[in-house]
This record gives sequence, C-alpha cells and structure tokens, in this order.
Amino acid sequence: MNKKGRLVLFSGPSGVGKDTLLDILLKKRPEIRHSVSITTRKKRENEVDGVDYFFISRDRFENMIDNNGVLEYTQYGVNLYGTPKEPIDNWLSEGETVILKIEVHGAENIKKMYPEESVAIFIMPPSIEVLEQRLRNRGTENEEDLIRRMEIATSEIEKSVDYDYIIVNDNLESAANEVIKILDN
Amino acid sequence: MNKKGRLVLFSGPSGVGKDTLLDILLKKRPEIRHSVSITTRKKRENEVDGVDYFFISRDRFENMIDNNGVLEYTQYGVNLYGTPKEPIDNWLSEGETVILKIEVHGAENIKKMYPEESVAIFIMPPSIEVLEQRLRNRGTENEEDLIRRMEIATSEIEKSVDYDYIIVNDNLESAANEVIKILDN
Repeated sequence: MNKKGRLVLFSGPSGVGKDTLLDILLKKRPEIRHSVSITTRKKRENEVDGVDYFFISRDRFENMIDNNGVLEYTQYGVNLYGTPKEPIDNWLSEGETVILKIEVHGAENIKKMYPEESVAIFIMPPSIEVLEQRLRNRGTENEEDLIRRMEIATSEIEKSVDYDYIIVNDNLESAANEVIKILDN
Repeated sequence: MNKKGRLVLFSGPSGVGKDTLLDILLKKRPEIRHSVSITTRKKRENEVDGVDYFFISRDRFENMIDNNGVLEYTQYGVNLYGTPKEPIDNWLSEGETVILKIEVHGAENIKKMYPEESVAIFIMPPSIEVLEQRLRNRGTENEEDLIRRMEIATSEIEKSVDYDYIIVNDNLESAANEVIKILDN
C-alpha cells in the first residue's frame, strides 16, 4: 500500500458516461474515496445531498472560498460549483486514493497544486457521433444546447492530450477495469 | 491464433515517436507484418528502400492507382505517398497481424474498407508542450513550419476520438507494452 495518497482527476465530455463509470468503479473498489463537489444550485428531486453534491448556500460557499477551503470553483449561469479542499487533504495525508470528477480547466489547476499526487484520467467517447447520439437520447436538450455541448466536447477532447491516461469508453465494464488497472499499478 | 487477420492502424501527430515505437514493437513481436508505404519522393541518405518506404517512380505509382493497387494515397508538396493494397490483403487472408503507420484521414478511409479487421490506435504525446519541444529538438524546422505542424497536431488530436485505443507515449517501453497488450487481447 502507498503511504502517499493519490488524487485521481476524472474528466471527459458531458454524455461520455463519467457518472455511471464512477458508480461502477466505487462499487468495485469501495475503499476509494469520492470527493463530492459543493454547489449553490438547488437540489433536483432525484439527487441526494452529500452524494451528488453538497448543496450549500452562496454565503457558505463564499465563506469557504475566503477561508481557503475551496480548491477550485467555477460559475455556470448563476450557480457556483467547487471542490472542497479539506476532505481531500485529509484523505491524501492518510494515504487514501481519492477520486474527483472535474472538468478540464479545474483538472489543470488541481494538477498544479498536487503535482505529485495527481493521476489525470480522461474518458473519451467511442466517437463524436456516439457522443452526439447519447446527448440526443437524453432528450433533455434543445438543438441549440446540443450544438453548444458538442462544441465544448470538441475543445475538451483537444485537452485530453494533457492527461496521463485516456480511456475510450466503448464498454462500461471494460473501461472501469482499465481505470482499476491504472489505480492498481 | 486468429484465423482472420487484423489490420492495426497506427496514427499520431508528427513528433510523437511513432517510428521509434514501431521499431520497439516489431522487435518485441517479430511476427507482426509491417506494411511499408510507397512514395515518389527521393530517398534520403539514411533511409533504406523497402524499410522506410518503397521508393518508386511517379509513373509506377500512377499505374498502381489505375490498377486498384493503392488503398489510399495523398500528396504532400509534389510527392505522392500511399498504401499498397496487395501485401495487406495477402497477409490478412493468411490471418496475420498487419501494422500500418497512417495519418488520420487515411486511417478513417481504411477503417471503412476493413471495418472487421481494423484496430485503430492513436499515439498521444504526453502534452502539447512536450510535443512542441520534441519538434524543436529535431532542429530541422523553422518557426513557420513548427507552427504549422502544431496546428496539424491539434487537429489530429481532435480526431483521436474516433480511434479504438489511445495510448499516451510518456515512456516508450510502457507505451509499446500497452500496444502489445491490445494486440494480444
């Protein structure tokens, strides 16, 4: 076992299946710590506080930022999303493996803060066409949103070059096994 | 052993180390067949005919195209570069594994022609900065060429999404082992 913890940065375009993959991964390796993000947006009905996000007030969020309690944060629309620092530092100091779902810019910043501990994994869709189809199948997007998401996806795929590992998610089970192989290394 | 041969399409930006990787690979797995490209350009001093390329005349090249002997070809400057069809078809029919260094557009076309046999592998540089440094270290490029190559590299990296496997070449030995793991699967 490693004395030093590892911080697994888990990125990939929207629709690539990060959440499902993360679920499988955490079931297969229950000892992995999952860093849950904080957000100021409202909880949706199907979401669980502390599992999907920690849903907190804007005041609380800003207070955490002021107290150096947020590793990185970003604003989408009117809502803030961020990564709490304390649990990560605690787990890493205990030698745990911590996994963190994070978009490409956040990953870049965190990698600079934890150059020794970071293992950056990018989840790639099997093809651009499959990604588009997956986003369409969700049925929650209008055409304009879809086009925007596909543009963001393309620019994220360009950033995959800066990741330590790239895994093509053509099959959830084998993609999960590839992540585990990296973590067991 | 497979009855059906496999056609390994091997792509990645200029400077990523495809040639060195291919050398290591062919030493570790001498049974793999390497499809050598044809070109009309002049042989350089350090090159070997039949190893680096088959150096042939433009007449001969065009004749091969007319006789359906070229899988795909492209023109850079005044020179033609292409993939001869016959050796690949022969090897595949004998159940061999054939490896073919090919740029992204050629790979796309060949994948359509051999949808069953193709295994597309993209070799990714560890980062954009490392790739730029490698191209600079070659010392053969002026600044303008370098910028152009980096632009091409970025658009190739975007295309990596359509590959079956993506391998980050941060270490030649382990990248070669990853390719072998794919081929042994």
